Amino acid sequence: MRVDGTPYRTIWASHDAGRVSIIDQTRLPHEFVVAELATPAEAAKAIKHMQVRGAPLIGVTAAYGLALALRADPSDASLEAASAALTATRPTAVNLAWALGQMRRRVAPLPFADRAEAAFAYAGELADEDVALCAAIGDHGLPLIRKIAEAKSGAPVNILTHCNAGWLAMVDWGTATSSMYKAHDAGIPLHVFVDETRPRNQGASLTAWELGQHGIAHHVIVDNAGGHLMQHGEIDLVIVGTDRTTATGDVCNKIGTYLKALAAKDNDIPFFVAAPSPSIDFAINDGVKDIPIEERDEEEVAIMRGVTADGRIEQVRLTPTGSPCANPAFDVTPARLITGLITERGIIAATREAIAAAFPERVLHTQPNRK
Amino acid sequence: MRVDGTPYRTIWASHDAGRVSIIDQTRLPHEFVVAELATPAEAAKAIKHMQVRGAPLIGVTAAYGLALALRADPSDASLEAASAALTATRPTAVNLAWALGQMRRRVAPLPFADRAEAAFAYAGELADEDVALCAAIGDHGLPLIRKIAEAKSGAPVNILTHCNAGWLAMVDWGTATSSMYKAHDAGIPLHVFVDETRPRNQGASLTAWELGQHGIAHHVIVDNAGGHLMQHGEIDLVIVGTDRTTATGDVCNKIGTYLKALAAKDNDIPFFVAAPSPSIDFAINDGVKDIPIEERDEEEVAIMRGVTADGRIEQVRLTPTGSPCANPAFDVTPARLITGLITERGIIAATREAIAAAFPERVLHTQPNRK
Repeated sequence: MRVDGTPYRTIWASHDAGRVSIIDQTRLPHEFVVAELATPAEAAKAIKHMQVRGAPLIGVTAAYGLALALRADPSDASLEAASAALTATRPTAVNLAWALGQMRRRVAPLPFADRAEAAFAYAGELADEDVALCAAIGDHGLPLIRKIAEAKSGAPVNILTHCNAGWLAMVDWGTATSSMYKAHDAGIPLHVFVDETRPRNQGASLTAWELGQHGIAHHVIVDNAGGHLMQHGEIDLVIVGTDRTTATGDVCNKIGTYLKALAAKDNDIPFFVAAPSPSIDFAINDGVKDIPIEERDEEEVAIMRGVTADGRIEQVRLTPTGSPCANPAFDVTPARLITGLITERGIIAATREAIAAAFPERVLHTQPNRK
Repeated sequence: MRVDGTPYRTIWASHDAGRVSIIDQTRLPHEFVVAELATPAEAAKAIKHMQVRGAPLIGVTAAYGLALALRADPSDASLEAASAALTATRPTAVNLAWALGQMRRRVAPLPFADRAEAAFAYAGELADEDVALCAAIGDHGLPLIRKIAEAKSGAPVNILTHCNAGWLAMVDWGTATSSMYKAHDAGIPLHVFVDETRPRNQGASLTAWELGQHGIAHHVIVDNAGGHLMQHGEIDLVIVGTDRTTATGDVCNKIGTYLKALAAKDNDIPFFVAAPSPSIDFAINDGVKDIPIEERDEEEVAIMRGVTADGRIEQVRLTPTGSPCANPAFDVTPARLITGLITERGIIAATREAIAAAFPERVLHTQPNRK
């Protein structure tokens, strides 16, 4: 999507130059910086330190990380080592392991001399597939928004979103945001309430930024405010993303998503999850019990980063010295709270049957390989 | 309670010196500063700028503000003007109007010469009553904690709390925290999860600080995390405060309380509200419909205040330039989500019948005066 008028993707690469470029998302929204990754270690670091974040973008970055490894050393040992190092960066997102698995299946049969170029090409295909997939999700979500707009006869449709399932979390378009961009481009009046999404503030810093760059009206709210807005009819629709979707339709997403789903249910507001099929883990049936939740550094809670009145980026501690913090990064929203999953093949119910019917080839192919 | 080993209240006064002293809570947890209020305007400013906050402490501060006004000018005009100015500072907390009403009824019949001294004395009585009331709430809540501790045979009782309904919000003891202090002092092992409570972070900055000063084990969490912890059995009990309680048991409290109540209900975890009777507004029956919710400055969401690594207090902006924020300060938790109200007269159901039975004199006295 556009940044200051220029179209960008979140990641792009040159095999010849041996270089992968990313938008350094830790610098947003106060600075727009492109970072270069030249080694698999730099790719792993970019994932671990969340210069790139969002399940699909993490997958594509890991794929390019493998390509960088093979460019330096195309051996099987190199392939295995880079794959292990990249897999270890983030435990929750299923796309990471999926993308690396796809890459290895593709390059492992090739002669050493061909591996690097093929890996770059295939990582590029993964990126293009992600763009097509996000665009399709937007096309399928658009009628939801259009229908509400028609019922409101011209008043803006108010959408709540949590975290950043925007184009910054993908390669382009985004998942949760894709139908918002499609609706806006189709001239449907739209207003988005953006949860700031503590502790890392991806909503306040990334979603607000990308919606603003695209001209979509929005307000940032604290994560506490969504329930109140729903009680007072100020939200027509909730659309969030997913880091991992179970075979039964449970959704593991940024911490706090579950609370918004409860509030949507309590107020009869449709709660949709934009769920690209690579996020679906057919080996997991009970999200709350079986998805491991990453416990991240307590400094993410204790310390906040922003820009001072005179333009310096500064970190400040919020908590008293001696007060420890706990920092679970994701939670699981049970399928019973989800109105529907917006997938690249259409909107489906968050049930085992509907998911299996929409992605029959994934049920068969994936199950024997996992757990 | 204790600060660095010394017992304090949050407010104390001297009629002779014409001075009211408060702990300036905007400086916590990074600095402990006592501020002096010499005029009703300074008292109003302290309330408005949240140097004092929490419904009961706001009420006592307003009472002392009226006393300061009468010390300077004991006329009826002065009484009316100060009363109006103090009432206008915060629209949501019922204690403010209640305390000012009580003060006026007491001093209005007196000769001008006696008004100031009587007002100081009566404000002091209000403060003492608040301490007794908070202590009583703690005594009634203590058995809840003791019972869970017995069932857990020695493992710490995990309590979640939201915002600061601690002694810093009252004169001493606190409401939600009172039973925690009583339990801790009784030797019951305890651990508190403290919601940071965006946008103003009263949990991370005040509750964590006061629990830490008293030696109670705790972790600060982001407001998003409570639902996840409840899903995983890490919370035994929720205790929060209330800014305004309806005649039917709905509770208006810091924004985000409703979301935690939904999660507690979804996970069968007892959700108690420490509700001193002055917080009960017998004229309101439907909290969601009829309690006006203060919309506060958007800068509270956009800008965060903390301490830098080198010890300076600094403000940083979190949101992109051009992204507006919405900032509703409270939400309403419907009575159906509340396990019980811990009042100074015991634990009662959050129902009209139970509330009326516990406070029959309030039903009669208050109803004709309102709305």
